[in-house]
Amino acid sequence: MTDFKQQALDYHQFPLPGKISVELTTPAETSQDLSLAYSPGVAEPVRAIAENPDDVYKYTGKGNTVAVITNGTAILGLGNLGGMASKPVMEGKALLFKRFAGINSFDIEVKHKTPDEFINTVANIADSFGGINLEDIKAPECFVIEKALIERCKVPVFHDDQHGTAIVTAAGMINALEIQGKELRHANIVCMGAGAAAIACMELLIKCGAQREKIYMLDTKGVIHTRRDDLNEYKRLFANNTDKRTLEQVIDGADVFVGVSGPNLLTAEHVTMMANNPVIFACSNPDPEIKPEVALAARDDVIIATGRSDYPNQVNNVLCFPFIFRGALDVRARTINDEMKVACVHAIRELAKEPVTQEVVDASCEQALTFGKDYIIPKPMDSRLCARVARAVAQAAVDSGVAALEMPENYMQE
Amino acid sequence: MTDFKQQALDYHQFPLPGKISVELTTPAETSQDLSLAYSPGVAEPVRAIAENPDDVYKYTGKGNTVAVITNGTAILGLGNLGGMASKPVMEGKALLFKRFAGINSFDIEVKHKTPDEFINTVANIADSFGGINLEDIKAPECFVIEKALIERCKVPVFHDDQHGTAIVTAAGMINALEIQGKELRHANIVCMGAGAAAIACMELLIKCGAQREKIYMLDTKGVIHTRRDDLNEYKRLFANNTDKRTLEQVIDGADVFVGVSGPNLLTAEHVTMMANNPVIFACSNPDPEIKPEVALAARDDVIIATGRSDYPNQVNNVLCFPFIFRGALDVRARTINDEMKVACVHAIRELAKEPVTQEVVDASCEQALTFGKDYIIPKPMDSRLCARVARAVAQAAVDSGVAALEMPENYMQE
Repeated sequence: MTDFKQQALDYHQFPLPGKISVELTTPAETSQDLSLAYSPGVAEPVRAIAENPDDVYKYTGKGNTVAVITNGTAILGLGNLGGMASKPVMEGKALLFKRFAGINSFDIEVKHKTPDEFINTVANIADSFGGINLEDIKAPECFVIEKALIERCKVPVFHDDQHGTAIVTAAGMINALEIQGKELRHANIVCMGAGAAAIACMELLIKCGAQREKIYMLDTKGVIHTRRDDLNEYKRLFANNTDKRTLEQVIDGADVFVGVSGPNLLTAEHVTMMANNPVIFACSNPDPEIKPEVALAARDDVIIATGRSDYPNQVNNVLCFPFIFRGALDVRARTINDEMKVACVHAIRELAKEPVTQEVVDASCEQALTFGKDYIIPKPMDSRLCARVARAVAQAAVDSGVAALEMPENYMQE
Repeated sequence: MTDFKQQALDYHQFPLPGKISVELTTPAETSQDLSLAYSPGVAEPVRAIAENPDDVYKYTGKGNTVAVITNGTAILGLGNLGGMASKPVMEGKALLFKRFAGINSFDIEVKHKTPDEFINTVANIADSFGGINLEDIKAPECFVIEKALIERCKVPVFHDDQHGTAIVTAAGMINALEIQGKELRHANIVCMGAGAAAIACMELLIKCGAQREKIYMLDTKGVIHTRRDDLNEYKRLFANNTDKRTLEQVIDGADVFVGVSGPNLLTAEHVTMMANNPVIFACSNPDPEIKPEVALAARDDVIIATGRSDYPNQVNNVLCFPFIFRGALDVRARTINDEMKVACVHAIRELAKEPVTQEVVDASCEQALTFGKDYIIPKPMDSRLCARVARAVAQAAVDSGVAALEMPENYMQE
């Protein structure tokens, strides 16, 4: 076993199994403390909430709690290994929610036979939380599940693998195209992969200005086009009325390549076929569709982003999900709508244009920190992200009429 | 509003809404930390668990997590106010699990139309936890629900309102009878109330030696007897073949009165009708079936216990539930069986016979601390409880063959 593997196992085992614990926020030392925390004192907030349901936000932790819920059918790049195997990922997500946005979060792994059973189970427990982050659920079930839960739950439901990925990709993409002197609405886009993340990325790029007919999506059978009869309803939305059938044909002259597929599917030769000043997002993790050094050796006018922290331009969902929930919770948004997602995109991308010092990111970071080809999106450790993104998301929720609260005064002032 | 009510509301509102938070147990400061906590490092424990399912106990918090689950249909003495109103109680329970036994616990409020839907929902999420504490679910649904969940879940399921109450009642009762020079197997018992707690108390007293035919249970319609045709299957088990119909008739000559009903239902006159050296458990909370001062004024040979901390002999579930789960989790028991419950009874009651100083209970405690009429059960703050009770429960789990692990060496040595 490599050192890193052993280190990762040790990290999950010490000082205690797992990564999160539940702690008290109120004193519980004396009998008197306990008479307030539990019987008889606890009857008072119970009565208050029974009289005024909104008081649940005043007297309980609901408003700052997000459940991370999965069925374990699409764990990282590892596939359908079941709920128990997914638990370290879910606890990791809970850790990130707390670390980056101060949100209390815990994980629930759901066993089910049909998507309906999953939906019913989650809908039945949803009121317990301020929001629900769906995680590692395979496509196409994830689309049905998310849609149904958004309809049935009174709290925000967000499938991070779709929308977190899409938001960070869109933020980086708009900046990269700007640096390359291009615009999303004119870009020819090749999307390698047709799963949940791919579809969500392309849908959000369209909302940000990309044109559907300029997108060429590929699944394992090649280009998704209008003559194919093997497409589910989600892929069908991207069926292009084209004679092109292969990656070679669509990459020729493309401005943008987005990979959400698998390792090493894009070659140096493909890269040389792209238009001038191309943009490549090779997001397969840990092994990207093409290694940055290979792409950059093929041509020097390319901007390349990956999912990896050891290269510049890391596309990392953590830039989005803690903060989009922070903003949504703080104005008690009943959903996370497109306006909030787009606001999130722009808040992230604008932050990349501001001056940054190593102090606000990570003292050990040796990568570029000036807006440009090697710094198109903020670093995950950027301490300004929470305020910027949460503020933009909260404002968008208020402006679009889905927030129960007004924008708090001086909210997240830096 | 009284000072205490305002204090209780304030306690639930400051420093933050609610009483519990999620915190990290591992470092998450640098990018390197995060590469272990999440991608790519987290893939290692995922793979390990996929290969060996038991590793979920090694690399995640499952083994030290108990979910507190309710539907809000029987909140404290306040009735069916719904899941949201119950949330302060559930968070309070989670607080007590952590405070007394170091168990990570959080609450889930389930919305459902039928008991089956509740059962399916909980069974579908049960694997996420090391154990499930059911709470504030009304009778008789709670019996069906608990039975079904015990059958369907691989982790211990325990309805504290039934069994926690029963265990602490049995512990105190056996001691009280001993002090009065009586034995459970000869005792005439009047049980006022026929709900979940009443039925569980009587069943456990029978397992500890009481005789079913010497128990007279009363519901709102009077004595439960064999000629009644309005009894559900749970009450029917206590139908007594007797001509007695009223409290007056059954209390006459009774050794024991257990009240799990409502305030002031037992009068001074009733108390005078009881046998010599009687025992009264007036557990309705906060207002007992009879106030201790009233009972003691009626006769001085009585031992009285209540649910209140401001009188001696408090029957408090917190003497049991944190520790019975502690023991069950530590040997990974797949259920909490009768052997474990009875072991719990005896561990609690034996502790009351040991010398105790104010340091181990609560420095502010001004009540009697010597085994006798005013000290039949340990105080909730007794710091020796966790080790004693958990050890007895864990040993009983191992001995009765429901534990996946051996008894840990030097387990909970004091």
